[in-house]
Amino acid sequence: MTPRSDARPARAIVSDVRPRVEDGRYDAKTVVGDAVEVSADAFADGHDLLRVEIHYRKVGARGWRTEPMSALVNDRWVGSFTPSDCGRYEFNVTARIDYFASWARDLTVRIGAGQDVSIELLVGAELVRPAANRAKRADHNRLATVADDLTAGQVPSPDQLADESLAALVARHSGGTPTTSPTYRVRAERVRARFSTWYELFPRSTSPRRGQHGTFADVTKRLGYLDELGIDVLYLPPIHPIGTTARKGRNGATKAKSADIGSPWAIGLPAGGHTAIHPQLGALSDLSELIDAAAGRGIEIALDLAFQCSPDHPWVTEHPEWFKHRPDGSIRYAENPPKRYEDIYPIDFETDNWRELWEALRDVVKFWIGHGIKVFRVDNPHTKAFGFWEWLIPTIQADDGDVIFLAEAFTRPRVMQWLAKIGFTQSYTYFTWRTAKWELEQYLAELTTTDVADYFRPNFWPNTPDILTEQLQHGNRQTFMTRALLAGTLAASYGVYGPVFELCVRAPRSEGSEEYLDSEKYQLGQLDLSDKVSIAPFLRQLNTIRHQQAALQHNATLAFHYVDNDQLMVYSKTAAGVAASDADRSAVLVIANLDSTHAQSGWVDLDLGKLGISPADPYVVHDLLNDAHYEWKGSRNFVILDPATRPGHIFRIEPGTSGATEPARAASPAKKKARR
Amino acid sequence: MTPRSDARPARAIVSDVRPRVEDGRYDAKTVVGDAVEVSADAFADGHDLLRVEIHYRKVGARGWRTEPMSALVNDRWVGSFTPSDCGRYEFNVTARIDYFASWARDLTVRIGAGQDVSIELLVGAELVRPAANRAKRADHNRLATVADDLTAGQVPSPDQLADESLAALVARHSGGTPTTSPTYRVRAERVRARFSTWYELFPRSTSPRRGQHGTFADVTKRLGYLDELGIDVLYLPPIHPIGTTARKGRNGATKAKSADIGSPWAIGLPAGGHTAIHPQLGALSDLSELIDAAAGRGIEIALDLAFQCSPDHPWVTEHPEWFKHRPDGSIRYAENPPKRYEDIYPIDFETDNWRELWEALRDVVKFWIGHGIKVFRVDNPHTKAFGFWEWLIPTIQADDGDVIFLAEAFTRPRVMQWLAKIGFTQSYTYFTWRTAKWELEQYLAELTTTDVADYFRPNFWPNTPDILTEQLQHGNRQTFMTRALLAGTLAASYGVYGPVFELCVRAPRSEGSEEYLDSEKYQLGQLDLSDKVSIAPFLRQLNTIRHQQAALQHNATLAFHYVDNDQLMVYSKTAAGVAASDADRSAVLVIANLDSTHAQSGWVDLDLGKLGISPADPYVVHDLLNDAHYEWKGSRNFVILDPATRPGHIFRIEPGTSGATEPARAASPAKKKARR
Repeated sequence: MTPRSDARPARAIVSDVRPRVEDGRYDAKTVVGDAVEVSADAFADGHDLLRVEIHYRKVGARGWRTEPMSALVNDRWVGSFTPSDCGRYEFNVTARIDYFASWARDLTVRIGAGQDVSIELLVGAELVRPAANRAKRADHNRLATVADDLTAGQVPSPDQLADESLAALVARHSGGTPTTSPTYRVRAERVRARFSTWYELFPRSTSPRRGQHGTFADVTKRLGYLDELGIDVLYLPPIHPIGTTARKGRNGATKAKSADIGSPWAIGLPAGGHTAIHPQLGALSDLSELIDAAAGRGIEIALDLAFQCSPDHPWVTEHPEWFKHRPDGSIRYAENPPKRYEDIYPIDFETDNWRELWEALRDVVKFWIGHGIKVFRVDNPHTKAFGFWEWLIPTIQADDGDVIFLAEAFTRPRVMQWLAKIGFTQSYTYFTWRTAKWELEQYLAELTTTDVADYFRPNFWPNTPDILTEQLQHGNRQTFMTRALLAGTLAASYGVYGPVFELCVRAPRSEGSEEYLDSEKYQLGQLDLSDKVSIAPFLRQLNTIRHQQAALQHNATLAFHYVDNDQLMVYSKTAAGVAASDADRSAVLVIANLDSTHAQSGWVDLDLGKLGISPADPYVVHDLLNDAHYEWKGSRNFVILDPATRPGHIFRIEPGTSGATEPARAASPAKKKARR
Repeated sequence: MTPRSDARPARAIVSDVRPRVEDGRYDAKTVVGDAVEVSADAFADGHDLLRVEIHYRKVGARGWRTEPMSALVNDRWVGSFTPSDCGRYEFNVTARIDYFASWARDLTVRIGAGQDVSIELLVGAELVRPAANRAKRADHNRLATVADDLTAGQVPSPDQLADESLAALVARHSGGTPTTSPTYRVRAERVRARFSTWYELFPRSTSPRRGQHGTFADVTKRLGYLDELGIDVLYLPPIHPIGTTARKGRNGATKAKSADIGSPWAIGLPAGGHTAIHPQLGALSDLSELIDAAAGRGIEIALDLAFQCSPDHPWVTEHPEWFKHRPDGSIRYAENPPKRYEDIYPIDFETDNWRELWEALRDVVKFWIGHGIKVFRVDNPHTKAFGFWEWLIPTIQADDGDVIFLAEAFTRPRVMQWLAKIGFTQSYTYFTWRTAKWELEQYLAELTTTDVADYFRPNFWPNTPDILTEQLQHGNRQTFMTRALLAGTLAASYGVYGPVFELCVRAPRSEGSEEYLDSEKYQLGQLDLSDKVSIAPFLRQLNTIRHQQAALQHNATLAFHYVDNDQLMVYSKTAAGVAASDADRSAVLVIANLDSTHAQSGWVDLDLGKLGISPADPYVVHDLLNDAHYEWKGSRNFVILDPATRPGHIFRIEPGTSGATEPARAASPAKKKARR
C-alpha cells in the first residue's frame, strides 16, 4: 500500500517514440549522414514547460550525445540526430520539467500585469543558485551572476527571460532525473542502401555472336553501355552450374530438348553448387575482372541468393538431411499443388540439422563477399524461414556493415514488411502492377508517410524476368518511358530488367500470362542494343538527373499535388534531411503523363509550402529533360504533355527573375552522372 | 556466428496484437461479460496454413484458456474471449503451422487433379500418428483410426479433409512450440464502467424552502424525481466544510460578502477537510441514509475528489510541508498568471514528503469507500502528478475492484488519453463543444474506431457548472433536447448538470463567458422543477430507451450513415459484443436534427450491413420516442424532422411485415427502466 517506487515518479511523460519498429524489437533504417527524425509525445501535469531531448550513441560507444527537440503541435515533439558512421545507433527521448523556463514565462506575465514580483525574483534565485553551484567555470560564472542579480532584486530584462541558452544552462546543471523512454535502435547504412539504380541482365545473353553463350568477359565489355545508362548496381541472375535432371525447356517446357540450357535458378551439378560458377560463363578470375572493371565505373555487381537446389546439386548427396523426404524415400521437389517443379528441391529450413544448414548458407554469402560482392538480390526470401534471415543478415552485417540485401518477395503486405523489419535493406514492391494515379498515390503514401517508411526501402521495378505486366504488353514505347519516369522519380531506388526493357520487348508467352515469350530464363536472348526503338537515351537522361538532384535520392519528402486530370500525376521532393553531397539540393517537381497515347493537359494546384516557395514570389520551373524554363507564380499553373514528345516534366524549382540569381551549379541534362 | 538460440526459431510470426496500450505497459479496458475482441497479424513463410489462438487467464489463475482466432483479411486474425469476473486478465496470441490442415488442403487439390496420392496418404499418416500416440481415450481412438486408414491407403472423404475439428485435434496433440506474442492485459470492470447515466446537482440547492441551505435529507427527498429521470449515478460536488479565507463571492467576486456561502471546491476549515462534511448538509449518518435510499432505487452516489485545500484546511497547519512555500514563508496559492486564486492552496505532489501525502490522499478515498461510496468524479486530475494516479487507482481497485473514477480533465488530447491509460475508468470529453456534424463524426470516429477505444471511455456532458456553452446560451429548449439526444445515444455514458440543464437555464455571467449567471458554485440556486419548460419528460424517455436497448449501452458498434443534409446526423449501434442482460438486443438507428429552429429533411443512405439487414428484406423502423412505425426497404429512405415536434428519431430496427413477427419483448417508451 506504500507507493511502490523508491524515488518519486518523474512528472513528465514520454510516449509513442518514432521511429520504433515492432515496439523496439527491430532496427529502423537510415544512412550515414542523413538526419534521423525522432518524434515523441511529451507532456506533464499542470502548466509547466518541458525540456525534451534526444539522447543517442553508436551501440557500444561510451558517451551519449544530446539533441534538443521542439514542440510541434498537440504535445508532439520533434528533433533529429545524424549518424556519422555505418552501424547501429541507439536512442531514447527524455523529458523533464523546465522549472526555470516556466518561472521565466510566468514572471514575464506577472511583470506585464504590473504585479509586485520581488518574492518571485527570490524564487528564481532559488532555481538558479543550485545550478550555479553545480556548474563549473564559465557556466558557473554566468549562472552565479544571474542568481546574484535575482537575489539583489534586479528584475531581468525581457531578453534575459526569453533567453533559451540561459534556460538550457540552468536545466543542464539542475540535476534530477528526467523521464526516459525505452531505448530504440536505428541502423545506419551506406548511401547506396537508400539511393540506387539497378539493372538486371542475363550474362549468358551478352555474347555479341548470335547463338553463343555469353561470358563474364562479354558482360565486362558491356559495362560502357551500362555506365552510360547511369546504373549503380548490375544484378546477375544465378551464375552457378545448372542442373540437368528435369531441366525445363524453352518457354518453361516440362521436357527440355538436348540443346536447352536450362534455368539458372535450378542451381547445382555434381561439379558444384552455390559457390561454383557455370563453366560457360568463365572462371572466378573472370568474375573478379568484371567486378573490378565495374567498380572502376562506380558500378557494383549484385549476385542472386537463390537458396534452392537442382536434384544434381552436391548437397543432395552430401547432405540429404537438408531436404524433405517422402515416406518412399524420395526427396520432395518443389510444388504448388497441383503444379510440380521437379527441377527444384527446396531446402528444408526445418531440418533437425538446421544449424549446419544455416551455417552452410551463411558460408555461401561469405564466400561471395570474400570475392568482392557486397550486394545480394535474394530470391523468394518469403519461402524460407524468417528466423533464418533474422539471424543471417545481422550476422553478415556484423562483419561487413556495407552488405546490401534486396528482398525479392512479391507476396502479401505483412510478409514483405516483416522481411524488411528483420533486416532486408531494400524490397521489391507492388509498383510493378500499380498503374492508375489513385493506386500509385495511395501506395506511395503508405510507403513514405506511414511507419512502413521507418524500415521498408522500396525498390521499384517496371519489369522482371518473371513479370511482363499487362500494361507493358499492351503499351507502346511511351509506356516504357512513363514507367521508367515513374519508377525513377517516385522511388530513390529502382531497376529494370534489360535489355528487354529499354528495347520495349513486350510479347508474352501467351495471352493472360506475365511470362516473356522466349524468356531468357530458359534460352539465350540476344537483342540489338542499337535498335532505334531503344529508350536507353531517356534512361540515361533520367539517371543523370537522379544523380544530380539530391531530392530524387530519397523518399521522405515525396508529396503529391492536385491536378484536375486523372491522367496526370504531379509530385515533388526536396532534399531536406538528405546527407550533404555534391548533388544539387533544389526541390524537384515531376509531372507525369500516365496516358502513353494522347496528349493530356490540366491545371496544377501546387502545395507551395511543400516546395519551399512563398506564394508571393515568382519561381522558375526548369525542365531538366529538355532544358525548357517556365516562369510560374502562385499555386495554380497550366500544363500540357504530349506523349509523342516526352512522358513528363522533371522540373527543378529555381528562383524567379525577381528573386535571387540562379545558383551557379545549375543542372545540365547532358552532364555525366556524379560519381559516388 | 552460430545461430543464437538453442531451439530452431518457430516459423510463424505474430505481430501488432490489439488491444495493447502503450506497448503493453497499461491495461486495456472491458467489462465483465463483454467479448474482448483480440486481433493480430499472423503469418509464416511459404504457403502452409496457420492455427492461431488466444490464450488468456485471470491474472493469478493457474491455467490458461484458449479461444480460436480466424483469418479476416491481409493476414489479420481475430477472435475474442469473455471475462467472467471483475479484475485483470492477461492474454497473448499464439500461432503455429498447421501441418495437417496444410496437407489436407494440398491433398484435396491433388485428388481434384487426378494425381496419384498414395505416397501423400502416408505423409498424412506420419502427421497423424504421433498426435494419436500423444492423445488419450476418445481423441486417441479417433486419431489412431485416421492414421490407420491413411496407412492402409484409404483416401479420406472431402468432408474428412475439410473437418476443422479433426485438424484441431491433430494440432492439439502435435506438440511443438508455437510462436507466442508478448502478454498483454485487460481489466474487466462492472457494467456501470461502460454504461452509466449521470446527474450532477448541488445538494445545498435542494431545499424546498427558498433561501435555505439544502441538506442530504433534501437530496434524499429528490431521489424520486431523479429516479424518474432514469439516472444511475448522482454526483455531488464537494460536500466538505468550505474555507473562509479569501472566499469567493457570488459570480466569483474576489471579495465575498458576509452572507456568501463560498465555493465547495475551496475545501477545508479547521474543523475538517476532505473527510469532513459541511455541517449545513447534515451528518455522516444523513449521507449514509442518502446512499442507502439511492441504492434502493438503483442510483449510486458519486463524490468529488478535489485534491486541493482552502487556506483554512487542517492540513495547512498539520502538514505545511505538503504545500509549496515561497521564499517569504507564505504558502503559494493557486495561480494561472496573472490570475490568482487566493482561496485555494494546491497540494505539492513534488514535496519531499510525497509518500505520506499520497497515502493521506489514498486514505481519503478509502474513507469514503468505507462509507459506501464507489464512484468518484476527480476534479482536474491533470493538474496533479500522473504518477500519483497511476499508483492510487490500482491501489484502490486492488481492494475494491468495483470503484469507478471519472476524470474531469478538459485539457489537451494526449493528457486526457494518458489519464485514461493509467487507470481512470471514464473521462469527460470535448463533446461539450462539438456541435457540427463533421466534428462530431470525426471525434466519435477517434473515440470508437481507433486504439483510443481500448482504454478511454468517454462520458458526454452537454453542460457542467463550469461550462455553459455558447450553443446552449444562444439556443432554445430544442437545443437542450438535441444535446441530450446526442449525448445519450452517441455515448454509452453521459451526464447532465441539473436541474439547470433540464430547465434550459442559459444566461451566462457575461457575454463571451461560459460561466453561468448566478452560478451555484457560489450561491444557492433553487429552481422550480415543475416549470413547464422542463425537458425532464424527454430525458426520462431517453434514459428509459437507453436502459431498454443494449445497443445504446456501449460504443464499439457506432456507425455513421450518409444523409444528404448536414443538419441531420444518422448513426446506428448494435448489441454485438455486449454482455447478455435483459435488455433488448435490436439494432438502433438514430436520426438527429442538429437544427433546433427549422425542420430539416433528407435522403438517408444506410449501410445496411452495419445494421444486419439484407438489402432484399423490408424492415420496420420503430420510433421508440413516439411509437411510430415506418416500413422501409433498402438503403435509401426519406426523413423529415421538425424541432417543434421532436429532436430526432430513435428507431429500433425490427423485421418487416414479410419477415418474422415482431419480437415479443418490444420496447415500449413508457416502460420503466430495467434495474441492474
